[in-house]
Amino acid sequence: VALRTESPAISLPAETYYEIQDFYARQMQLLDEGRTEEWASTFTEDGVFDASAAPEPVRSRAAIAAGASAASAGFTAQGIQRRHWLGMISAAPRADGTVSAQCYALVITTPKGGRPAIGASTTCNDILVRESDDWKVQERKVVRDDLS
Amino acid sequence: VALRTESPAISLPAETYYEIQDFYARQMQLLDEGRTEEWASTFTEDGVFDASAAPEPVRSRAAIAAGASAASAGFTAQGIQRRHWLGMISAAPRADGTVSAQCYALVITTPKGGRPAIGASTTCNDILVRESDDWKVQERKVVRDDLS
Amino acid sequence: VALRTESPAISLPAETYYEIQDFYARQMQLLDEGRTEEWASTFTEDGVFDASAAPEPVRSRAAIAAGASAASAGFTAQGIQRRHWLGMISAAPRADGTVSAQCYALVITTPKGGRPAIGASTTCNDILVRESDDWKVQERKVVRDDLS
Repeated sequence: VALRTESPAISLPAETYYEIQDFYARQMQLLDEGRTEEWASTFTEDGVFDASAAPEPVRSRAAIAAGASAASAGFTAQGIQRRHWLGMISAAPRADGTVSAQCYALVITTPKGGRPAIGASTTCNDILVRESDDWKVQERKVVRDDLS
Repeated sequence: VALRTESPAISLPAETYYEIQDFYARQMQLLDEGRTEEWASTFTEDGVFDASAAPEPVRSRAAIAAGASAASAGFTAQGIQRRHWLGMISAAPRADGTVSAQCYALVITTPKGGRPAIGASTTCNDILVRESDDWKVQERKVVRDDLS
Repeated sequence: VALRTESPAISLPAETYYEIQDFYARQMQLLDEGRTEEWASTFTEDGVFDASAAPEPVRSRAAIAAGASAASAGFTAQGIQRRHWLGMISAAPRADGTVSAQCYALVITTPKGGRPAIGASTTCNDILVRESDDWKVQERKVVRDDLS
């Protein structure tokens, strides 16, 4: 997947970059705790989640919640704790006021009583939009390194 | 462990968020270099370190130093280099002027001449307080994913 | 390797710390996409790349490009996707206007159709200099944990 690297280097206020880091932390902590309805609410109502491992993009917050809930239940049933790490974040403003953010994402999986492992290494490309008091994901594209 | 996710989304100055990231980096580099006395000095004098893997919370800087020193000596004896990665940080101010910070933490272990592995995947909840020219940990709670 | 930990704790504007994080993300995304000429252009013309795994430091942007290109071709031939994660960043201004930055770096490797693994755990010490509209690496020293 092609990540933004050409554009004018540094173009976002530090404040916004910090907010995105904090948002990503809170967002993925929700997912990793199995709070999938709250996690889905970090997407816009018409949000799109396009994961390379899925047959097609998931459209709408309700569909994203349903998908996340099913996946989460599966891990819980296996006694596996997931931790989603987003890092190496690069972000830039877009003409329409949204923010384009690229990052790497790892899923660390730990079975009860067992050893942690890297479940997946991915790239993540987001369109982020500010709604009331927080950021939301309008569009997320996740590409798994093993499938690309 | 329940991480903060409900509260007013973004409430800390960018400056403070950056300071905490830089503090975490310096703090854990001390531990990973075996400079355990200096590492312990990143806690307040009455600091508490509550790790789920330990029988009970360690109380006071001196006790934290002693515990870290023993653990560090064990890894050195085995020729294992540890690297503590703290990431996915979310932070918020508390009414008393301290800062509550939640993050994920990984311990990466590398034996001399061997392959790196993830020694532990954890959550870390801190109460941070500003003392003179730097942050200090007043209370740290670390929960290992394999034990929870 | 000795990392900076003594100095006056917090001395860089939040803006600069953010810029460095964003720069590291864009820089390593270039390398991981095999865009090695562009990656080399994130070093100064006389940049030095000193990796503990190499027999001696690589000097000049052209030599850095050549080395990266050869290494990248090798991974591509094996069908391995690399992801360089830089984190736990601590940075401080130097008297000459450059910035000294210390961090940890992991290389995550994923074979096509296979499982991700940690290829290397390292420390990374940079001298960064601002050139026109972005940061550049003047000197980078990478020490692998398994070799130190």
